[in-house]
Amino acid sequence: MSKPILNVIKVGGNVLDDATQLDQFLKDFAQVPGAKILVHGGGKIATTLGNHLGIAANYHQGRRITDKATLDLVTMVYGGLVNKQLVAGLQALNCNAIGLTGADGNIIPAAKRPVKTIDYGFVGDVQSEKINSSLLNQFLQLQIVPILAPLTHDLEGSILNTNADTIASAIAIALSEQWQVRLIYCFEKKGVLLDVNDEESVVRLISPAVYQQLLAENRIADGILPKLENAFAAINSGVHEVLIGHANDVIANTGQQTKGTLIAA
Amino acid sequence: MSKPILNVIKVGGNVLDDATQLDQFLKDFAQVPGAKILVHGGGKIATTLGNHLGIAANYHQGRRITDKATLDLVTMVYGGLVNKQLVAGLQALNCNAIGLTGADGNIIPAAKRPVKTIDYGFVGDVQSEKINSSLLNQFLQLQIVPILAPLTHDLEGSILNTNADTIASAIAIALSEQWQVRLIYCFEKKGVLLDVNDEESVVRLISPAVYQQLLAENRIADGILPKLENAFAAINSGVHEVLIGHANDVIANTGQQTKGTLIAA
Repeated sequence: MSKPILNVIKVGGNVLDDATQLDQFLKDFAQVPGAKILVHGGGKIATTLGNHLGIAANYHQGRRITDKATLDLVTMVYGGLVNKQLVAGLQALNCNAIGLTGADGNIIPAAKRPVKTIDYGFVGDVQSEKINSSLLNQFLQLQIVPILAPLTHDLEGSILNTNADTIASAIAIALSEQWQVRLIYCFEKKGVLLDVNDEESVVRLISPAVYQQLLAENRIADGILPKLENAFAAINSGVHEVLIGHANDVIANTGQQTKGTLIAA
Repeated sequence: MSKPILNVIKVGGNVLDDATQLDQFLKDFAQVPGAKILVHGGGKIATTLGNHLGIAANYHQGRRITDKATLDLVTMVYGGLVNKQLVAGLQALNCNAIGLTGADGNIIPAAKRPVKTIDYGFVGDVQSEKINSSLLNQFLQLQIVPILAPLTHDLEGSILNTNADTIASAIAIALSEQWQVRLIYCFEKKGVLLDVNDEESVVRLISPAVYQQLLAENRIADGILPKLENAFAAINSGVHEVLIGHANDVIANTGQQTKGTLIAA
């Protein structure tokens, strides 16, 4: 028997920070049929609010260092403000959303990142096999739409800050046993572009063979390479398909006629 | 067939603001057997944080006026920081907590309070018959422990600020059809005192007859009168018992040998 279809959709700061784009995205997301999960990032508001509160944003190689004040800040902003506004907006559109962090139902256990040369602070590394997929499955069976904030739990009472892309991937892998999962990353372009200056040059399908060819021809922009590596890692761990595309195209990209870049084995 | 027992417990700012008291309360709450729901208030942190952000707290007759900035503040603090710290703390104690606002699953619909002489802003009035008791029952059947923030939903996409005592009462009434509910208000005293200067003068049981007698003898302190009126209103709407007691006594007060004031028909 074939598995039922599940869309795991990740939306990031570029959409969350723009009220018009966000409104449209929520309308589109609410219309996506069948089982679905939304994983959201943070947006600029945590940084803006942190500046007001005198909590400086510290980054190392693009990753935020999370001290205790920053942890409380992101717990408030990601787990409270952003998450609950998404939930209320979706409920108003008849989408039965429930907002969760990784602490709720211990859905996303994580290990505090070990201190090596850099102490990232309260940052959690997740493993897909530790995800509480049983509880997520129970929610999905109740036709609940989980809206996940990028926060995890060390199982000892502390929330941890975790990258939303990583959470989306771990959730997609964990649920692949019971579902045919399409993992969809919404970003600011329509897909992987053959020519970065041509928005219409979307590569519509990347199979492992196409991927090897594009790599050999050096046609993959540096910025997109880690996304593709993560995509194939997800597929090698059981995820049926990964799609990289624009937030505006989420209805098409959850259907049969995708507009973004579909990555499949 | 008798209904199964459900404890609906409300804990307020005095406990939330004191780390030692809160730790003990969570340990005790985690040990309460059977089906349970926690409704929490806000605590001082929203006011403290609001001061840092230049959001002044405005009150009219003890009720906070909730403008948009205040709404965002309480959504962050109550729905994010306080709620998720409670959830993580309880999960670490093997209590399968899930944190929710009234927007999640539309659990607590509310009507924005009509403007009369005072505009309370984004404040929601709840009606017990509109509570999504079906979803709460599904969670309880999954042995999930709902942790409810004092936030409701206007069903049109806006969170609303609502008094936690009122939410606890509405939830207790709504779930009385399927459960034998004891509604427990934790406050800073051991119960209703016959002598406000004697902490041990707890009235252990208030029946309607005792209530009338205490009223006639003018032995009820002004501060406790609204609590008793609300308690009898809940009992008249189907709640089996209401208990008013100290947060430190929550284990006893959910059992047969109560230490606080039990109010029953």
